[in-house]
Amino acid sequence: MPATVENRKNLSEALNWRNATKHFDPARKIKDEDWAQLRDSMRLAPSSFGLQPWHFIVAQDPALRALLSEASWRQPQVLECSHLVVLTSLKNVDVTFIDRYVASVSTQRGVALDSLAQYRESMVESLIEGPRHLGILEWSRRQAYIAMGFLLLAAAELRIDACPMEGLQPQAFDRILGLEQGPWGTVAIVTLGFRQAGGTDGRALKVRFGDAEVFETR
Amino acid sequence: MPATVENRKNLSEALNWRNATKHFDPARKIKDEDWAQLRDSMRLAPSSFGLQPWHFIVAQDPALRALLSEASWRQPQVLECSHLVVLTSLKNVDVTFIDRYVASVSTQRGVALDSLAQYRESMVESLIEGPRHLGILEWSRRQAYIAMGFLLLAAAELRIDACPMEGLQPQAFDRILGLEQGPWGTVAIVTLGFRQAGGTDGRALKVRFGDAEVFETR
Repeated sequence: MPATVENRKNLSEALNWRNATKHFDPARKIKDEDWAQLRDSMRLAPSSFGLQPWHFIVAQDPALRALLSEASWRQPQVLECSHLVVLTSLKNVDVTFIDRYVASVSTQRGVALDSLAQYRESMVESLIEGPRHLGILEWSRRQAYIAMGFLLLAAAELRIDACPMEGLQPQAFDRILGLEQGPWGTVAIVTLGFRQAGGTDGRALKVRFGDAEVFETR
Repeated sequence: MPATVENRKNLSEALNWRNATKHFDPARKIKDEDWAQLRDSMRLAPSSFGLQPWHFIVAQDPALRALLSEASWRQPQVLECSHLVVLTSLKNVDVTFIDRYVASVSTQRGVALDSLAQYRESMVESLIEGPRHLGILEWSRRQAYIAMGFLLLAAAELRIDACPMEGLQPQAFDRILGLEQGPWGTVAIVTLGFRQAGGTDGRALKVRFGDAEVFETR
């Protein structure tokens, strides 16, 4: 289905409408169907090799939120938001994870595992045996930021407020969430919901460098 | 303006429609108005502190493309795509850049520079004087990946094909683009345009881990 004039308009409006929400209305919750769509926006986001080296923890329990709040400078969003997503990424890419992904390709596409041997090998060579492995933690964190981008734009299109937050202690998050011995490590969080009405929150003019400052065509 | 049923439908379709395009039709070019909207999707993307530690080089000259192709394993997208964006990020965050941003906030919002002193100081403390500075290059690369996410989802909504590509030699790109002595460093590229008709390219079923594998609610 081709893009329509309405789609273009909605994209433009969403881009200009969204901003980092500082105060959510705790009484307003994201509807289940919208939350399902937001989950899909992350799940269907692209990643290098399609590997999806990410895991998303949705922290809804008030007691858990209270602990996470202590580990994120008590920023009000953590307690007030409707949904809180902790984006975690693979601390290390190993053969086990690659094989899990290759098995999912085989199952979902209905192709023999053997036919994916070369694809598997290219991932092992690039991500485990090659020089990229030295920076593999940062590589996986960057992939999680693609999913973050998808989530934030998708939320804006649904007119759901959000705030991406890096201001937290990843190690404390890992400890609170019991991730220390496992494959995943905290990267950042995104809080979502609906901004408090009547506040001046986030309604300041969006500040961006101009097109000619940011883009250069050669 | 609230989100409409059409908006939701378009988002869902876009998420499922997009995939990494291997072969573009060199004869089909992105229209100027769409390209302007895609530039805006990157320019208006969020970043930590709103700092926008990124610079986007659009490589359109065939001779330049030929050089970049050599530095990216001669993947066909680099020559065949309508638009090629090199995402670069700040190699180092310094006071000069923070001051440039603070000046833009002052100008665009019409507020005195003095009133932004505390905001400026919080950025200097976090990004230059604090422990985060040790990983500042990776921090700025992650920000660029948010913009990448916005670009890829926006393109899908306009039904413009794209391929995000990490398979390139960043140092060679920096040399070719003359970035070695400057503040920006190559992070990744995104090629955009329209896929070749009739090919099987990218029409394999999208493979993703299931919702219950990727999400965990607590």
